[in-house]
Amino acid sequence: MANIPSTPAPRSQDISTAEQEQAAYRTLLAGELEDFLATQHAVLSDVSEEALPLLEAVHNLSRGGKRLRALLAYWGWRGAGGAPLDTAAVRAGVALELFQSAALIHDDIIDRSDTRRGGPSVHRTFSLAHRDANWHLDGSHFGSSAGILAGDLCLALSEEMFSAVGVPAAHGTTARRIFNRMRTEVMAGQYLDILEEVVGPSHEPERAVVRARNILRYKAAKYTTEHPLALGGALAGANEELLAAYSRFALPLGEAFQLRDDVLGVFGDPQTTGKPAGDDLREGKRTVLIAYALCGGGETARREITLRLGDPGLDDDGVQVLRSIIEDSGALAATEALISSHTEAAFAALEALPVDEVSRAALEALAHSAVRRSS
Amino acid sequence: MANIPSTPAPRSQDISTAEQEQAAYRTLLAGELEDFLATQHAVLSDVSEEALPLLEAVHNLSRGGKRLRALLAYWGWRGAGGAPLDTAAVRAGVALELFQSAALIHDDIIDRSDTRRGGPSVHRTFSLAHRDANWHLDGSHFGSSAGILAGDLCLALSEEMFSAVGVPAAHGTTARRIFNRMRTEVMAGQYLDILEEVVGPSHEPERAVVRARNILRYKAAKYTTEHPLALGGALAGANEELLAAYSRFALPLGEAFQLRDDVLGVFGDPQTTGKPAGDDLREGKRTVLIAYALCGGGETARREITLRLGDPGLDDDGVQVLRSIIEDSGALAATEALISSHTEAAFAALEALPVDEVSRAALEALAHSAVRRSS
Repeated sequence: MANIPSTPAPRSQDISTAEQEQAAYRTLLAGELEDFLATQHAVLSDVSEEALPLLEAVHNLSRGGKRLRALLAYWGWRGAGGAPLDTAAVRAGVALELFQSAALIHDDIIDRSDTRRGGPSVHRTFSLAHRDANWHLDGSHFGSSAGILAGDLCLALSEEMFSAVGVPAAHGTTARRIFNRMRTEVMAGQYLDILEEVVGPSHEPERAVVRARNILRYKAAKYTTEHPLALGGALAGANEELLAAYSRFALPLGEAFQLRDDVLGVFGDPQTTGKPAGDDLREGKRTVLIAYALCGGGETARREITLRLGDPGLDDDGVQVLRSIIEDSGALAATEALISSHTEAAFAALEALPVDEVSRAALEALAHSAVRRSS
Repeated sequence: MANIPSTPAPRSQDISTAEQEQAAYRTLLAGELEDFLATQHAVLSDVSEEALPLLEAVHNLSRGGKRLRALLAYWGWRGAGGAPLDTAAVRAGVALELFQSAALIHDDIIDRSDTRRGGPSVHRTFSLAHRDANWHLDGSHFGSSAGILAGDLCLALSEEMFSAVGVPAAHGTTARRIFNRMRTEVMAGQYLDILEEVVGPSHEPERAVVRARNILRYKAAKYTTEHPLALGGALAGANEELLAAYSRFALPLGEAFQLRDDVLGVFGDPQTTGKPAGDDLREGKRTVLIAYALCGGGETARREITLRLGDPGLDDDGVQVLRSIIEDSGALAATEALISSHTEAAFAALEALPVDEVSRAALEALAHSAVRRSS
């Protein structure tokens, strides 16, 4: 568990105010998403009732999740002086959550993940429908194809909702610039990620950690925490100084969050993660954790990793072998140390944030849940 | 060849004015696209030089093409009184062309098309790079994954450019509503298209033509001609009456255009189409042409189509068998008749359009090239 520096505890009154406001925001967020998808239901129905499963897939996925991005955007907005429960902050939150759903839908195709949040992933849902209906041709390809289209629809809807924020998100604003940059960076980061997998563990292993940390930064950290917080702030008119202070808090937080995710993907309990044990190993994910093992693990460790990582048929024994290598090479300890140092940096920056105490209490709670989680 | 009704020929002076203005627009369009992608190059370089192939794929694809959508948007803009060569019309054109590129990138993965415009398709480019570099894991899956990401990037860039049109494209405008609806409809239409393929030729063949025409309308016609023309008009402030007149011209034009495409996909000359002969048959495309053959062709025709359509290994003899069935069943003649009737409706509506004579001359030339093409 990462060391979280002892900062002055928020007053219980601030915590309780933040919790109540956040619960109200969550309700508005869910309502706005439902209303928006209902209007889309009408658009798709006009085309054909048979097209509705595409929207249902988006709906089922986007109604779940922790809402971390939307909540960060909300407190970024509030911390910059935005009005409580304002529609702009609600819509920006829905846009971020829809973007996340789109990324997950396509990610699951790319990673060949059949499960998501304990149920079948979107492309898998379509290939199961194909099987159950005894349709023709290749059901797996149909699933991927429908998943590509569902992700595309979700990506377009994310942006449609973002533009509905109106004037503060219009062309030329800081918020629009952040939203645009976020999308390009995520896609670039994801490309680097799949490139790293195919280039293979033997490619310049001494630079593996540098590359893995860059991928983590662009594919995950900036997008999960830094950009959402900054986006909310920018919508409320935050100046450059506040946005920079937000980054000093949110970027290390996002890095710690994703590193925790990487550790859970190898060592996590399937009961709490909702994914099979060691799933990241079977998928061949080239995480910072693996990069440390490649750098620090010696010849045998590298050979075993090269042999086993990304083997879809990796069994429990194989998972155990890789887990031992990752522990014995010092990779787990190095990753935990990195999580600790990022966490410390994030909490120190949080303390220095020039925001009201309710927003700070809310951000502190979000930060704790991000780095202390077990799923 | 479709009968094109003899409308009063445009004056040669109007034709020449339209041609010059259109050439100037094309130059601005290409310049705006290059400038925009150069700014994106900087964003991706900040992430990593290794991410640049993703943008190069978008660049290579989007710099080609007939520019039909952009040109229709331009003359829709001009016909509604928009200023010549205005930046708003240029940016809307770039946004439409980038959207088309995104759709093609994902379409080629879905259709398993290895070629596009005579060269390798985007996903194929990435799987070839994988092969040439002797990378690890499944090169075909890497190609598809990179193609998914390149299409996503292109989709996001399309919207980024559309929002850069500014106030006339802001939330709540008619132009934004058209842009949003276009995207949702295309994705719904594409889903119906892949659904039709897997449901198979034996599913309610008597309704096959109805379904195929609906798919054609949403996946292709509205998106290729109706929405771009209306979008340009809306950006220039066209009223509902003009937009309705635009639809009466552009929707049948788009239907004729796509039906011609379907005929070329089966009977076209590979030398001019840039695709292997009968490629649509190998891909199993469920076009209106095929639907007519299923409806009108009798038991044997249905059995042969069910057996051969969508067979990736279909050879020249197999192509010839299907071509004969399509001709003998009357499907080719029925499709040509439909092309003629749509073409006539489009040209009649063009004559009645309340636009200036230069715009009408330009639209007439575009309409001719759309329905008379051989590639």
